[in-house]
Amino acid sequence: MSAVGPGAGEGLRVAILGGGQLARMLAIAAHRIGIDPWVVDPKPDAPAAPVAHHVLGDLDDEASLEAVAHCDVATAELDHAPLAALEALAKRMPVRPSARAFAVAGDRLREKELCGRLSIPTARFAPLSSIDDVPDAVAEIGFPAIVKSRCEGYDGKGQRRVDSIESTVRAFCELGSRPAILETLVPFTREISMLAVRGVDGDVRFWNPVQNLHCEGVLRLSRPLDLAPEDPIVRAGQRAVTAMMTSLDYVGVLTVEFFEVEGRLLVNEMACRVHNSGHWTEEGAATGQFENHLRAVAGWPLGDTHLIGATAMINLLGELPPRRAVLSLPGARVHLYGKEPAPGRKLGHITLRAPDAPALDAALATAWLGVRGETGPLRVAS
Amino acid sequence: MSAVGPGAGEGLRVAILGGGQLARMLAIAAHRIGIDPWVVDPKPDAPAAPVAHHVLGDLDDEASLEAVAHCDVATAELDHAPLAALEALAKRMPVRPSARAFAVAGDRLREKELCGRLSIPTARFAPLSSIDDVPDAVAEIGFPAIVKSRCEGYDGKGQRRVDSIESTVRAFCELGSRPAILETLVPFTREISMLAVRGVDGDVRFWNPVQNLHCEGVLRLSRPLDLAPEDPIVRAGQRAVTAMMTSLDYVGVLTVEFFEVEGRLLVNEMACRVHNSGHWTEEGAATGQFENHLRAVAGWPLGDTHLIGATAMINLLGELPPRRAVLSLPGARVHLYGKEPAPGRKLGHITLRAPDAPALDAALATAWLGVRGETGPLRVAS
Repeated sequence: MSAVGPGAGEGLRVAILGGGQLARMLAIAAHRIGIDPWVVDPKPDAPAAPVAHHVLGDLDDEASLEAVAHCDVATAELDHAPLAALEALAKRMPVRPSARAFAVAGDRLREKELCGRLSIPTARFAPLSSIDDVPDAVAEIGFPAIVKSRCEGYDGKGQRRVDSIESTVRAFCELGSRPAILETLVPFTREISMLAVRGVDGDVRFWNPVQNLHCEGVLRLSRPLDLAPEDPIVRAGQRAVTAMMTSLDYVGVLTVEFFEVEGRLLVNEMACRVHNSGHWTEEGAATGQFENHLRAVAGWPLGDTHLIGATAMINLLGELPPRRAVLSLPGARVHLYGKEPAPGRKLGHITLRAPDAPALDAALATAWLGVRGETGPLRVAS
Repeated sequence: MSAVGPGAGEGLRVAILGGGQLARMLAIAAHRIGIDPWVVDPKPDAPAAPVAHHVLGDLDDEASLEAVAHCDVATAELDHAPLAALEALAKRMPVRPSARAFAVAGDRLREKELCGRLSIPTARFAPLSSIDDVPDAVAEIGFPAIVKSRCEGYDGKGQRRVDSIESTVRAFCELGSRPAILETLVPFTREISMLAVRGVDGDVRFWNPVQNLHCEGVLRLSRPLDLAPEDPIVRAGQRAVTAMMTSLDYVGVLTVEFFEVEGRLLVNEMACRVHNSGHWTEEGAATGQFENHLRAVAGWPLGDTHLIGATAMINLLGELPPRRAVLSLPGARVHLYGKEPAPGRKLGHITLRAPDAPALDAALATAWLGVRGETGPLRVAS
């Protein structure tokens, strides 16, 4: 393995495509470990702007890329980083993870095909290139099912649940008549994500599997599961993610979301970046996802990922709850992103810590009430 | 109690006098909890500059203070914040802690007098206003003793150990013939610091007492002690700090350093700010010192201070150890301040975490070797 750049380390400069909250938390971790963060984002009030050098411009604008040409290495905080930008940067510096990884993760069909080649189970699916494909796809997949755009979907966007040929055709059109897939609706018992980081030298570290609770397609709550290494979920998840990383010669944090169905894991989707379901690692693991992504990208040794205590994360969506309620939660750390409130927008998150699972359950009950003003579906059984 | 400023909270602006590593860590915590940090520092490469609005100017310059006049509240990261600047700011906004607290903490004689009024034990001392005071002071205090400048001493600066009238006179002159004290040399068994935070409403929270290891006047290692609330050290320390805070109507984090002598605590000195011996709180306590200082200063509810696991902090002084060695330490988080190496300069610190004290002992042994390249006096018995 080799570190990147001249004098690698003291003042190593990392370019980050995108300046949202993930870039903000990457930038803060970067300063802490001696890395100089440069973010490219077209919004003057990008969440990362106050804590990084901010190149104000579009990601696929040549001037933006020129402004970070002096960096030692590049990465992205976006699922849909423009491939042309990643490829242009790759002529100047290492881009980690690679444009190829983003190309695969940014296209549900290529993602599924990668899993297929690696014998990693996914939900059954059929491609929908045009409405002409609908009858065959429906015949193969059946109902209920979901039409998902191949590209540019996140947080439940670009998806429609369907139960007839008519609703399938309508969904395909409503999603812009762009290439899509028809996927069988999986009757999952749990949603699990696996976060891993891989170094330039091929070293791979896993954080604990995370159980996630989504609502209307948006993540609400994440909780790492304290499972033994030999647990089938851990083994299956790690085997799948390791195979994907090796196949892509991946460098950085990779997040893979799974459905758990009758004790088996099916890959739902992957994200070539740090992830909302890994925010708890900042407080709940020896090394957080932001630091380990940067370590990997910089070509440095990876950090310990082991779990510390019991921990969970609750997203703050749409509008912030009363400050007094949040600041008074026992064992909580609040992280705000500096964004204006808007319906459904991710404005921040809270990490809860407790010495053990029962204490965490109690803290979660209090927090859910404090944050959402309601009692709710908060117990995530482990 | 009342929160400060209009619309207190969303985008509350805090002015911080001084832009060193303490301001850097305050600024990072500020962003996280929704506070906008403004630092005043004359150095273009001040450690806090990359993560805060940076007003480049002297602290006692009128233009500097004008540039933060729009802030909602002011604080300082310096022991010796210019009193005139604090008083000028106090005409525009709340200054927390107050100029009066800084005036007391910035003068060893006033500090001792405060303790005297509150019946808090200190080392025996006598004032030295001029060399004419030496004979009487020596007659009262005896030898061995230490001459300490009343003002502007920190990290062992402004101090001379003395053992005769001649060396006392010489020390007084070497220290600039400025007002000083002669203090008896205390044969302490441990150095302990107590960190506490007090809110605008008088709410006081304590972190665990910290055992500190100094070398040549500079802090090397801090380790919180897991003592029961009824332990005499905890009770005596909390009683002293509470009395000092109440007397000064203190708001923010206050650090008091003690000598432990035959089971008793003697106040050594106080600092009206977050403190190097509290850096472990970022990882080792539910709420860190930086966040709680800001909460207090903002008039917000204080956070939980309870200990999480076993933890210790090692300072990185003078030059950084090899990156690979530091990044490979199990259970370690490294914090670098972005400063150029220089002999004795504080460049960063490492926080070690372990599930229990024996595991921490082992991690400390490894870390001390990795950081200092030597086996050393690292076991801090608890």
